[in-house]
Amino acid sequence: MMRAVHYTGAGALEVADVEDRPPGAGQVTLDVAYTGICGTDLHVLHGEMDARVRTPAVLGHEMSGRVRSVGAGVTGWATGDPVTVMPLRWCGTCPACRRGFSHVCQRLDFVGIDSPGSLQERWTVPAELLVRLPDGLALQAAALVEPTAVAVHDVRRAAPRPGERALVVGAGPVGLLVALVTRAAGAEPLVAEVDAVRRHQAQALGLQVVDPRAASVPEVVAQWSAGAGADLAFEVSGSGPGLDDAVQSLAVRGRLVVVGIHPHPRPVDLFRVFWRELTLLGARVYERADVERAVELVAAGVVPADRLVTRVVPLEAAPDAFARLDAGGELKVLVRCGSDA
Amino acid sequence: MMRAVHYTGAGALEVADVEDRPPGAGQVTLDVAYTGICGTDLHVLHGEMDARVRTPAVLGHEMSGRVRSVGAGVTGWATGDPVTVMPLRWCGTCPACRRGFSHVCQRLDFVGIDSPGSLQERWTVPAELLVRLPDGLALQAAALVEPTAVAVHDVRRAAPRPGERALVVGAGPVGLLVALVTRAAGAEPLVAEVDAVRRHQAQALGLQVVDPRAASVPEVVAQWSAGAGADLAFEVSGSGPGLDDAVQSLAVRGRLVVVGIHPHPRPVDLFRVFWRELTLLGARVYERADVERAVELVAAGVVPADRLVTRVVPLEAAPDAFARLDAGGELKVLVRCGSDA
Repeated sequence: MMRAVHYTGAGALEVADVEDRPPGAGQVTLDVAYTGICGTDLHVLHGEMDARVRTPAVLGHEMSGRVRSVGAGVTGWATGDPVTVMPLRWCGTCPACRRGFSHVCQRLDFVGIDSPGSLQERWTVPAELLVRLPDGLALQAAALVEPTAVAVHDVRRAAPRPGERALVVGAGPVGLLVALVTRAAGAEPLVAEVDAVRRHQAQALGLQVVDPRAASVPEVVAQWSAGAGADLAFEVSGSGPGLDDAVQSLAVRGRLVVVGIHPHPRPVDLFRVFWRELTLLGARVYERADVERAVELVAAGVVPADRLVTRVVPLEAAPDAFARLDAGGELKVLVRCGSDA
Repeated sequence: MMRAVHYTGAGALEVADVEDRPPGAGQVTLDVAYTGICGTDLHVLHGEMDARVRTPAVLGHEMSGRVRSVGAGVTGWATGDPVTVMPLRWCGTCPACRRGFSHVCQRLDFVGIDSPGSLQERWTVPAELLVRLPDGLALQAAALVEPTAVAVHDVRRAAPRPGERALVVGAGPVGLLVALVTRAAGAEPLVAEVDAVRRHQAQALGLQVVDPRAASVPEVVAQWSAGAGADLAFEVSGSGPGLDDAVQSLAVRGRLVVVGIHPHPRPVDLFRVFWRELTLLGARVYERADVERAVELVAAGVVPADRLVTRVVPLEAAPDAFARLDAGGELKVLVRCGSDA
């Protein structure tokens, strides 16, 4: 038996005893060290994804841990290996997979939402999802690899060149990671964020910030860029005003990556898209190369885990951790699921 | 003295006597052979661009002709040379020009709108705007080079690969040219058009067509592509339903070129842009390489001028030609401005 966090529907989480599940053929059982809580997990908790989630559900897809035992036919992995998981399972046969974009498979199983996740002491997953961690990387920091991979993918879609100016609209965890990864690529980020606590967190990371309620973001960007506009922008706020600021701030041939989720159609200034020959790029999750790059960036300290992780709680306190995140003020909260050995 | 067509404001055109303007230093005077009438010219006639146009204005930017005389300092051009004009003058100093995108200069002079155009017997322009035509190319066909260059630019933005499926929404002259240029690039176009006359014109060019009022375009595209969706789409209708059809028809990682003008912000399904990792690309006018490629395509008959030009009228009948275009049913109407020698 072991402990697991269950989403039981209707906004409720509970910590329960569950049976251990030994690894089947091609599977690996992990000792989970840490699991980060993601904005998507909060959406699940609020019932917004009940059509997709089967209760009781074990959430969690931002994790680090060690191999505990391997199933039949698994090669290349041994007990104790430090790992993270790339939580995507694709069908291999749909048009997206056949086109080479299996990360956005049209029947994608996002592990931790569509199938059981890592908010438990031990987790059994297909071996092909494992991503090796370097020996020197602290497992607490490694729990940031998955959200960093999101940012790496977003930034790769925009293909920044050194010296380019990048507007990042929204300074939640993903926005901050996008800004940090953009900076690591040699571009210069400017973060727009309405929330004072988040602006402070961005400044503490050495990022330039602007408050869209205190100044016109397009005007600030125009001054910053000698009238040209931003070379690239990331819409990470999911808001209409954020989207407008991004579109209005871009230079001729500027690229906008749509990262934030806009559930309903949004008015977009397509005249400006035409007039300035802008490019809008959708970006979703990541490919394996993005995860591997994220491991490098976390290991190199480009993504400073000690500053981004604002709280670590034991598994028994996971429900409280969700509540704290909902209340605001936290950046990244980790759940310690087992040993940090 | 010579004859010129004047837009005098408030929906009125008149043919008037004007003074000849000999070429100054760096200029060339052309004998204009043909000038095509463009949808933008109709917008001017309807008063929609009065803030930009100084009356009396000589419209016209789709032309062919021959060099009549050259001004001081002009080299490389001789009387009788067949030419068209790339009707863009840029400042060279604005951020767009400095970024290498002078065709969308932030102070662009679009010749024929912002400065006098070719709806006159003789036309004096800066020599650097000239584009040489091959000797064997009929001047009537060559009047299609400019709109073809628009299509070449639009298609280049989408970077089609051989065998890709391309949805073209809107079968006016630009939509048809986009479809023809797409086909010349080895991709397979499908044209969506609500107007029966235009659908018939598209079919006469050997293009596949669909009527969006008779069938769901995304469903037709899904069947056509074995469920994958279109690899690329061109929104050339300027309409909300056309835009929606384009977005909903695209495959994972599909590219949408926004060609049509949407004067007001349009609701865009950004969730689908995110979910399928779509790319939206604005495209406006053309670069010199596009014009040179357009000359090749018209000369090779890929753009079949004899089928696209549905009417040729003398200069004195230009006002009537605008009225006929407004009434619908015509594809491309040319004004014979002088000799076809």
